[in-house]
Amino acid sequence: MLGSTHGTLTTDLRARVVACGQQTGAAVHGVTAAEGDLDVSGRPLYAPVPDLDRFFRPEAVAVVGASDADGRPNTGITRQLIAWAERVGARLHPVHPTRTTVFGLPCVPSVAELPEPVDLAVLLVGDPLPVIEELGQAKVKFAVAFASGFAETGEAGADAQRRLAAAVERSGLRLLGPNTNLNAFERFRDDLEGPAIALITQSGHQGRPVFTMQELGVRLSHWAPTGNEADLETADFISYFSGRPEVGAIACYVEGLKDGRSFLLAADRAARNRVPVVAVKVGRTEAGARTAASHTGKLTGADRVVDAAMRQYGVIRVDGLDELQDTAALLARARRPAADGVVVYSISGGTGAHFADLATAAGLRLPPLSADRQAELHQWIPEYLSVANPVDNGGHPVGDWRGRRIIDAILADPGVGVLICPITGPFPPMSDRLAQDLVDAAEATDKLVCVVWGSPVGTEDAYRTTLLGSSRVATFRTFGNCITAVKAYVDHHRFTTGYRSPFDEAPRTLSPSFRKAQALLRPGHRLSEHAAKQLLRAYGIRVPREQLVTSAAAAVRAAGLVGYPVVMKASAPQLAHKTELGLVKIGLTSASQVRDSYRELTDIARYEGVDLDGVLVCQMVERGVEMVVGVTRDELFGPTVTVGLGGVLVEVLRDVAVRVPPFGEDQARSMLAELRGRALLDGVRGGPPVDVDALVEVVLRVQRMALELGGDLSELDINPLMVLPRGQGAVALDALAVCR
Amino acid sequence: MLGSTHGTLTTDLRARVVACGQQTGAAVHGVTAAEGDLDVSGRPLYAPVPDLDRFFRPEAVAVVGASDADGRPNTGITRQLIAWAERVGARLHPVHPTRTTVFGLPCVPSVAELPEPVDLAVLLVGDPLPVIEELGQAKVKFAVAFASGFAETGEAGADAQRRLAAAVERSGLRLLGPNTNLNAFERFRDDLEGPAIALITQSGHQGRPVFTMQELGVRLSHWAPTGNEADLETADFISYFSGRPEVGAIACYVEGLKDGRSFLLAADRAARNRVPVVAVKVGRTEAGARTAASHTGKLTGADRVVDAAMRQYGVIRVDGLDELQDTAALLARARRPAADGVVVYSISGGTGAHFADLATAAGLRLPPLSADRQAELHQWIPEYLSVANPVDNGGHPVGDWRGRRIIDAILADPGVGVLICPITGPFPPMSDRLAQDLVDAAEATDKLVCVVWGSPVGTEDAYRTTLLGSSRVATFRTFGNCITAVKAYVDHHRFTTGYRSPFDEAPRTLSPSFRKAQALLRPGHRLSEHAAKQLLRAYGIRVPREQLVTSAAAAVRAAGLVGYPVVMKASAPQLAHKTELGLVKIGLTSASQVRDSYRELTDIARYEGVDLDGVLVCQMVERGVEMVVGVTRDELFGPTVTVGLGGVLVEVLRDVAVRVPPFGEDQARSMLAELRGRALLDGVRGGPPVDVDALVEVVLRVQRMALELGGDLSELDINPLMVLPRGQGAVALDALAVCR
Repeated sequence: MLGSTHGTLTTDLRARVVACGQQTGAAVHGVTAAEGDLDVSGRPLYAPVPDLDRFFRPEAVAVVGASDADGRPNTGITRQLIAWAERVGARLHPVHPTRTTVFGLPCVPSVAELPEPVDLAVLLVGDPLPVIEELGQAKVKFAVAFASGFAETGEAGADAQRRLAAAVERSGLRLLGPNTNLNAFERFRDDLEGPAIALITQSGHQGRPVFTMQELGVRLSHWAPTGNEADLETADFISYFSGRPEVGAIACYVEGLKDGRSFLLAADRAARNRVPVVAVKVGRTEAGARTAASHTGKLTGADRVVDAAMRQYGVIRVDGLDELQDTAALLARARRPAADGVVVYSISGGTGAHFADLATAAGLRLPPLSADRQAELHQWIPEYLSVANPVDNGGHPVGDWRGRRIIDAILADPGVGVLICPITGPFPPMSDRLAQDLVDAAEATDKLVCVVWGSPVGTEDAYRTTLLGSSRVATFRTFGNCITAVKAYVDHHRFTTGYRSPFDEAPRTLSPSFRKAQALLRPGHRLSEHAAKQLLRAYGIRVPREQLVTSAAAAVRAAGLVGYPVVMKASAPQLAHKTELGLVKIGLTSASQVRDSYRELTDIARYEGVDLDGVLVCQMVERGVEMVVGVTRDELFGPTVTVGLGGVLVEVLRDVAVRVPPFGEDQARSMLAELRGRALLDGVRGGPPVDVDALVEVVLRVQRMALELGGDLSELDINPLMVLPRGQGAVALDALAVCR
Repeated sequence: MLGSTHGTLTTDLRARVVACGQQTGAAVHGVTAAEGDLDVSGRPLYAPVPDLDRFFRPEAVAVVGASDADGRPNTGITRQLIAWAERVGARLHPVHPTRTTVFGLPCVPSVAELPEPVDLAVLLVGDPLPVIEELGQAKVKFAVAFASGFAETGEAGADAQRRLAAAVERSGLRLLGPNTNLNAFERFRDDLEGPAIALITQSGHQGRPVFTMQELGVRLSHWAPTGNEADLETADFISYFSGRPEVGAIACYVEGLKDGRSFLLAADRAARNRVPVVAVKVGRTEAGARTAASHTGKLTGADRVVDAAMRQYGVIRVDGLDELQDTAALLARARRPAADGVVVYSISGGTGAHFADLATAAGLRLPPLSADRQAELHQWIPEYLSVANPVDNGGHPVGDWRGRRIIDAILADPGVGVLICPITGPFPPMSDRLAQDLVDAAEATDKLVCVVWGSPVGTEDAYRTTLLGSSRVATFRTFGNCITAVKAYVDHHRFTTGYRSPFDEAPRTLSPSFRKAQALLRPGHRLSEHAAKQLLRAYGIRVPREQLVTSAAAAVRAAGLVGYPVVMKASAPQLAHKTELGLVKIGLTSASQVRDSYRELTDIARYEGVDLDGVLVCQMVERGVEMVVGVTRDELFGPTVTVGLGGVLVEVLRDVAVRVPPFGEDQARSMLAELRGRALLDGVRGGPPVDVDALVEVVLRVQRMALELGGDLSELDINPLMVLPRGQGAVALDALAVCR
């Protein structure tokens, strides 16, 4: 089916609260999710991995609508499928209502009359819907539908696609498409060795460059052109490929996602399996997102949420197809790094300086070589050249036996994990031997050796034969792509080392807070500030001491209990912009001020026509850093958690970080690290650092609210959350909650 | 000489103030600078353009140290120079103390005995210094010194280079090098037509890829490998190339600049001549800057200042050599755009969506085509495909006559200046014809046609023969480089249209303010807040009403004159961190508060050991946006002007823009547009917009101070400058000035 339930929170959690008492005692940590498990929001903690072995390597294939008539488009396709079936050793059965043979193969009139059970049916018919039921009855495992005219063409097409998806679900088979093509059945090179790239694309044309990498010696094992994803989606292929031994990296071209949750579960599986996923995701701009959505009929999601979600699961997002190619090729083939130090080695000081500048700016670590190592290198490199890192050999040593010695000496350094040699200008007397030395040295080490072949021509022998002939050297054409790929390589291995899946630690049972919170909800209404704060209190988030009062005398009594100085605020369910209306009084230090303020606030409210439920008398909290923490809904990923710096920073700069639940404390901390104004948390103008631990705790509690109440709340915002000096906690000074 | 005076302000302006009275009446606008003109800071407004015709196309050349002995490095160089001289039609004279012939050419023992005056002497000797005087006596115009071991090797080498530079200055000739190479005398292709790239590099190896572009059909006219720039520098070549008719664009690889001012004057000349300058400038990071500095012995400057200076003069800065190649090639060859609208055209909706997304994110404008135009395109393209922009043709129309019609129809649209066709995957039946149609259409239009050939292989015929064979189609290999180049193309033409040189409008004479300001300076000292504000007042910058008092009674009288509420601040020349020490009292509303505050401030000062010159009683100014405006010294460009948003924005985020004087009002406004928190100036939380005109006026007055007092001040900062609501001006609430 098309509209997946994964993205939709169970809105009626009320039924489940009955079991809440028993469930809250269950241990929720350290558990590995299994099929059927749901988190507390009712979304799955596990996605089954489709067994696609027989899709990619079927024993028998039916081609429905096969043709060998001249000039029919299906004739060319049939010919290609026959060739492919021969290559993979599958028996192919043409199906056509009137033909008896197709290209000499016996043809049956319908699926029901196939001579044997088939694994895969390729549907070349204009409308695949009528065939689906027949395929289900014949126990066909997989079908591919090439037909177009579905969700990519508008609302009528989307309806047809929903009907197709429903038929597929009833039938028990799995469908690739519609609106897909022959890419899965292309001629792959089978003479290349080592870990391969598996490719997933939502557009055949956009996948072609990665496929073409085979001509440069990069192995490709699979290509899944997912088309409209009426059934099988990008996530299914990520899950499947991440368990295949021959797959070293997964490259994706994504325009939109069918379902946010299944994408995250697939990315999580790849992270557990330490298989890197590199993705182009269209939708950096509104315009791009709109165009992509109209092209595929899928959801694009808010780009910053997509970006955050990918980073949470270590998916490497790149912008260009060239970066996709180069990064996936490196990650597929390079072994796990022994160290993260990068050394730049070149025959020109200028090249080294330039490369080091860009690499450092991108966040790579270029540690200086030890004094001993430098002394060793100076045996072969003149003293006046710098060999600290970058290593500048001045050119001449690469022309003789010294060249290899230098490379080996650098690679022998225990702090070095990556050696990068940018060969900017090809000069055969030097660069040919240098290329060969690099290839030979790479064969003799586990460390990563990268070369940038900087000539724009690219027909040179040293490049085409020597460098591309090696599966151990990673060869690039630009500084930029080399740096992007090496950064992704270092980051991927750092991320997957000790990776803990947030799904294993996601809450599965309702917290005791939920029952308290539930009583406060008013479906379809905005809560009063006081009620919203009670909601926060239910989840253990500190709010100021405060009392809701309905008379001046009660206000004075409340102030005495709360303690001077106090803040007074008008309170009403639908009240926004209190400050602008003059409905907030701060720094009140005496009973008379409190009494006067009570009268003033109620007078203004009357004048403005606001129906108050009372006046809040609150403890006044100063001397902290103002933050905002909230829950925002994303069309792809459901409720997300945001945190930002308050005041002008959030109002003018939108200095906010976002995460998709479930996430752990590490991600909550990394949200803070992302903020441009994060230095405020360390204290400014000699002020003390704030209580970051308390802030992190509030973020995690708000996440819990997002998970448990996300279906009931359309908006939740703490603004400001006053984070006090270290050790003193954080207090929600104001809150907004809108119920669905 | 090595250390140029251009970057150094005349520190003794006092001598010039004598003439101030007469000079201030002179008109300073609309004047075009001429040789010898100086601005008010004593720096040149004009740089002479060296006539390098005879350097690049000499009639007679001497090779000092020529050799034909086997195994000598100079033998290979001599051979190449002889071949080059033949190609350019120059007579070559070997010079060697003992040989009578070199490669059959008659050899003279010394420069003095050359048979004719020569234009250029190539010095292959280890130490060029002794030869320089001889060359001067022989009236040789140019010399090239290949020898290394100068500033690139450390302090001793830098000394040798200074001696060499001094000898060159005495001799009257112009020197390229030392530490340069044969690049200027390479074999350039002479069969290519149209505007060419002229190349300037401070590293031969780093220039090679641009040179190699000739193999892809891109014409190169010159290569200046400037080496250590003891005499001729990058700026000289920019100035010269920008006046050559065959040069369409100048490509530079810069590690450091010899002199900031001469670079700006050269960039200004190129902007006046509408010749684009594209530059890689190393130094994005501290580490890169350090490495580059040690490689060339030049100054790198603060990167953000370099970046600003380049943008002020329209220099296009790129990071990678591949971007340098692609951007320079496009700018050299493309005609002036008729419109800035970009249309993306492709055979795949995915490709169009992806490209449009990245292009829009980079700031290109992709206007939708008109309804009429879309209807026209739908004659050839199925209705269900979007042709608004991007135009998706679905593939099939490119295979027949419709392909060319579609391209022509798009190019005929008056709003379209650029057509970009990304061919992601080569598929010969379609892409071969598409490439040919694009080439043919480009021949028939003045508009820019770009193709991205997305295959990573690059040996395909459609790419190598069809596309690279056309000088009218700009061909790229990646989406990213195409977008970077087209953005540079649109920006360059927008920038140079109606370009007004800031040097024409730079002040040449001291303002009347200078005399007043001069009396306030205390060389070597930090001024008191009061004195610093007097300096601002001298330049017409508003400060609060305030009085410096030395008794409590005087404070009360001052408060009455200034008007309540008042602010009181301790005042002393060396006093910093007043607020932290408790030496500022705000919001004082009565005589008794003023009296008490006076005592408290003087008590604290006594306790802290601060020797006050008095207490400031100031008008209290609220309700504005706090900014900072100041002057900062850059090692390359001298005093620069900065403006930023005050408070946490400048303290935590360093949200500051910088410009190098001289600059006009347009640049002052663009500084504000650069600030991330610029929305604050438009008013927040329903507040009124602030007086941006007054803020711009303060920035320009501070620039005037930088120009006139820059040599006398090591630091000047207005913090905060309170910018009031529109129409109400801006007030400098506090100021810091440190004299040199």
